Amino acid sequence: MTITQAAPLRAPSPTPTRNQASLIVHGRDRTGIVAAVGAVLSKHHANIVSLDQYSDNPHGGAFFQRTVFSLDNLKVALPQIDADLTSQLADGFDLEFTLRDLSVPKRVAIFASKAEHCLLDLLWRHRRGELPITVAMVVSNHPDTADEVRSFGIPFFHVPSSGPDKSAAEAEHLRLLRGNVDFVVLARYMQILSGDFIGKLGVPIINIHHSFLPAFIGAGPYAKAKERGVKLVGATAHYVTEDLDEGPIIEQDVVRVSHAHTVADLQRRGADVERDVLSRAVLWHSEDRIIRHENHTIVFA
Amino acid sequence: MTITQAAPLRAPSPTPTRNQASLIVHGRDRTGIVAAVGAVLSKHHANIVSLDQYSDNPHGGAFFQRTVFSLDNLKVALPQIDADLTSQLADGFDLEFTLRDLSVPKRVAIFASKAEHCLLDLLWRHRRGELPITVAMVVSNHPDTADEVRSFGIPFFHVPSSGPDKSAAEAEHLRLLRGNVDFVVLARYMQILSGDFIGKLGVPIINIHHSFLPAFIGAGPYAKAKERGVKLVGATAHYVTEDLDEGPIIEQDVVRVSHAHTVADLQRRGADVERDVLSRAVLWHSEDRIIRHENHTIVFA
Amino acid sequence: MTITQAAPLRAPSPTPTRNQASLIVHGRDRTGIVAAVGAVLSKHHANIVSLDQYSDNPHGGAFFQRTVFSLDNLKVALPQIDADLTSQLADGFDLEFTLRDLSVPKRVAIFASKAEHCLLDLLWRHRRGELPITVAMVVSNHPDTADEVRSFGIPFFHVPSSGPDKSAAEAEHLRLLRGNVDFVVLARYMQILSGDFIGKLGVPIINIHHSFLPAFIGAGPYAKAKERGVKLVGATAHYVTEDLDEGPIIEQDVVRVSHAHTVADLQRRGADVERDVLSRAVLWHSEDRIIRHENHTIVFA
Amino acid sequence: MTITQAAPLRAPSPTPTRNQASLIVHGRDRTGIVAAVGAVLSKHHANIVSLDQYSDNPHGGAFFQRTVFSLDNLKVALPQIDADLTSQLADGFDLEFTLRDLSVPKRVAIFASKAEHCLLDLLWRHRRGELPITVAMVVSNHPDTADEVRSFGIPFFHVPSSGPDKSAAEAEHLRLLRGNVDFVVLARYMQILSGDFIGKLGVPIINIHHSFLPAFIGAGPYAKAKERGVKLVGATAHYVTEDLDEGPIIEQDVVRVSHAHTVADLQRRGADVERDVLSRAVLWHSEDRIIRHENHTIVFA
Repeated sequence: MTITQAAPLRAPSPTPTRNQASLIVHGRDRTGIVAAVGAVLSKHHANIVSLDQYSDNPHGGAFFQRTVFSLDNLKVALPQIDADLTSQLADGFDLEFTLRDLSVPKRVAIFASKAEHCLLDLLWRHRRGELPITVAMVVSNHPDTADEVRSFGIPFFHVPSSGPDKSAAEAEHLRLLRGNVDFVVLARYMQILSGDFIGKLGVPIINIHHSFLPAFIGAGPYAKAKERGVKLVGATAHYVTEDLDEGPIIEQDVVRVSHAHTVADLQRRGADVERDVLSRAVLWHSEDRIIRHENHTIVFA
Repeated sequence: MTITQAAPLRAPSPTPTRNQASLIVHGRDRTGIVAAVGAVLSKHHANIVSLDQYSDNPHGGAFFQRTVFSLDNLKVALPQIDADLTSQLADGFDLEFTLRDLSVPKRVAIFASKAEHCLLDLLWRHRRGELPITVAMVVSNHPDTADEVRSFGIPFFHVPSSGPDKSAAEAEHLRLLRGNVDFVVLARYMQILSGDFIGKLGVPIINIHHSFLPAFIGAGPYAKAKERGVKLVGATAHYVTEDLDEGPIIEQDVVRVSHAHTVADLQRRGADVERDVLSRAVLWHSEDRIIRHENHTIVFA
Repeated sequence: MTITQAAPLRAPSPTPTRNQASLIVHGRDRTGIVAAVGAVLSKHHANIVSLDQYSDNPHGGAFFQRTVFSLDNLKVALPQIDADLTSQLADGFDLEFTLRDLSVPKRVAIFASKAEHCLLDLLWRHRRGELPITVAMVVSNHPDTADEVRSFGIPFFHVPSSGPDKSAAEAEHLRLLRGNVDFVVLARYMQILSGDFIGKLGVPIINIHHSFLPAFIGAGPYAKAKERGVKLVGATAHYVTEDLDEGPIIEQDVVRVSHAHTVADLQRRGADVERDVLSRAVLWHSEDRIIRHENHTIVFA
Repeated sequence: MTITQAAPLRAPSPTPTRNQASLIVHGRDRTGIVAAVGAVLSKHHANIVSLDQYSDNPHGGAFFQRTVFSLDNLKVALPQIDADLTSQLADGFDLEFTLRDLSVPKRVAIFASKAEHCLLDLLWRHRRGELPITVAMVVSNHPDTADEVRSFGIPFFHVPSSGPDKSAAEAEHLRLLRGNVDFVVLARYMQILSGDFIGKLGVPIINIHHSFLPAFIGAGPYAKAKERGVKLVGATAHYVTEDLDEGPIIEQDVVRVSHAHTVADLQRRGADVERDVLSRAVLWHSEDRIIRHENHTIVFA
């Protein structure tokens, strides 16, 4: 058996992100952006920890850059760096940028229904120190998981939502969420969100759903997949847009199945992939590794 | 560097399948089938090499069994085994069975167009001894691969097929194929086969095509997949039915891609998966490892 | 977002295995085994639900067969089936067989240390109804996970075990385990078990450990893997033998990593694979899908 | 069947790398590198196509950067860019850099023995336009593949090498290679290279070999893997150092196997992984995507 004394995984030091900030730059590509960004950071004596960059066409295409840098007295310097970047980038290059202190975790609300595999996996990874987020609350249309959620020390709100009219539930959601969260995760939340709600909420929403090759539309997709004899079942995490499941894809994965798997087996294996894929999407979002552009994502993972 | 003296892969001995036969039994499940098949094989002193069995519902569901057995003087004994199975199974149990001498390779025609990755991979694997088939011919609507195919010692037939009316091409195909092949492989053959042709041909046809989660319908699927930012591209091998790409799935696989891959990169990686998936489907079909049932497959791989 | 109303995963019906039994047959291959087993089951009007069989050499090699059958009044009939199989198989063929009522879950003790990822994953899956086992107890050399384990309604025993002399701890382990469990799972238990203990315990022990290509021997394997720049980290579940980590492999899997992953990242991704691989090994063992032979396993998964 | 008219894959346009250069910067990390590199490229009005950067520790660790840029009249400007980088980087920062015109393919010699799967896959991918290399020659200690190699229009040299004394063969190898190639690929070349030869050759050597979890040392690794019942077989591509198979890992992958696979099956599936992994390593090396550092690699793939 294994006798290696692995480093304890439970209490990760907060050191990695202390005095670190992320800078996302996004806009039309042109000569000199890299030099301009580099000059601002260099002027402030920032140490660049990592830098990823991508251009979908160097001749006037879209430009994407993620820089993580460290700096003693980061909090003091950030406003001046922000001002310098504004004058260099926003004015000179017609670029957007986002500067964020990585020591401040993003605040998230997790929405769930009865299925708990994605919800619990996120809560447990968070407790292990794997996810640099603050779980502000869990919201569910069913009361079933209340005790378990609260045992993690996290507020649980039961907001029933049945029938076609979601307006009362969505009003309650907005009261709970507005000003309190930086993004929302739908961890197998089985209710449709209205376009109106998505617009009013105004923060990114990440969803997870099962995926097949080919797709099986409508009710009972696992049963249809079984009928066709699929050999892979998968999951896709994406940002929610008004077009339901048509938003930009963040991450996907699959697992192998065979004719001997029942529909319940397919769902079970699908659930394993769902929780893995969703946890990676949440991690990357919380570390500013994802840039949305048109209907796709640039992921610097 | 590696210094292991691996066994030569080029000239596999034909021993493994000499004096071996496969028996596929397929029908409604009921008590006693296994005992009845076992009794026949035991009576003939056959050694069972492998036996796979599956029932989708033991109470009157569908029953599937693949047995490989060996027997000295197999060729002499087969007719009597066939007769005994007929009296035991077909009469008593309302089952279908297929008995086949595995030393006789199945004869295949490979259809291709301009893209050669699937075609060449099958020819290479065949030459290496990986596929127990006889490649009777390659048929293409383009002449480009003629020299290469013939360098493998395999007949190549160029049958042009443009425009909506395929009747002349299909008549030529039928003249070439009928009586000469046991199955057909569409190795990226970019022409539609008519339902009439499929019916007249009367042998199984295996096709390969790209697959995505979710599916992208219509022309330019790779470009659409790029727009949506898919993180996986895949391939599906299936049996051809009149409903085009809706036939029973044989095998599937995927490969990971990222935002940094161009549409051409996606196609290239997709091509790698296509040839792997197709070669597995052809191997399994040639070894009688696949049973078709309704619109899916049972694969004893 | 997804609106499919998936079947609830929480409370699986016990129906699937009611009135079902598994039969494992294992020994020297010879003509007639399949017929003999089939005849016994047929005589008792058993419905064969699934049958998997493998022979590593049909001419006197080793024979492996797993049959699941259903039968009304199974409990009443089992003793007579057992007697019939004994007279047919054990006497006539020199084979060993094991017959087990699948409605009686195997009892397991889970051993853990500080790392909780494998332990919690097993408890979750068990609560969700994915594992047909009874978790009789959790034993740990650290008290840290006591509250969490007991919140699942499962007994927790803290048995300290430090220093080279494990005899006191092992004596305590034997008192807890003997007669109470059918197998033991080492879910990242970081203490060596003595050969003496393994022998006295007398039930199978499943272990999980990290794996690399190539292997990195000794302390700090993740740090060594990082130095060499591995692109995959993996996990192996195996049965414990006196030769420590050299026992028969049950299941393996890997996950992709890159140069950008720190040693802590490698451990984290390794932990994800460990819990998946271990859960599959435990599931297959609890369903009698694994046959041990010499130093390897036959897995009918 | 698939009717999508995919873009032809055979004749990729040379456009992508015309007027493009790669710049690899590697050394001790410190503040200001990014700005300095950016300033030089900006001064020359270079469009940055892609930029990847990694630092294993921003406080004085190792720094790695790969930039691809495009520039009209690249060939004219390169000497001056090189001079500017020298004065900015090599003098000011104690960094090494490599600047290369990507329109000039690297010249490679492929070494092979009897097994042809890796050799043929590289030649075929090259012909398809997937690998931006010039295959200067194929060298083998067996004459078997001569005709096939020459049918690709590539010189083939048979250099026998048996017995422990490789000095005559290695002298012949040096005569063939020196001045003619930029790197060497061992595509299942089954002879040991001496440290003396590696030193005199002076260009990178990429090797491919099978990999298992755990490793199986010595002769007959596939047989040993079969005895232990491995569930995965894999392949590792690495740079050759004097310590045989201990050099920096470039790429790895695995494929799933089961107890039902024979040793020959394991070799066959292993061969599939070997050719895939080797082709990726060769592609990345030819595009300057790999930086060697100590005994590992940074791969910007």
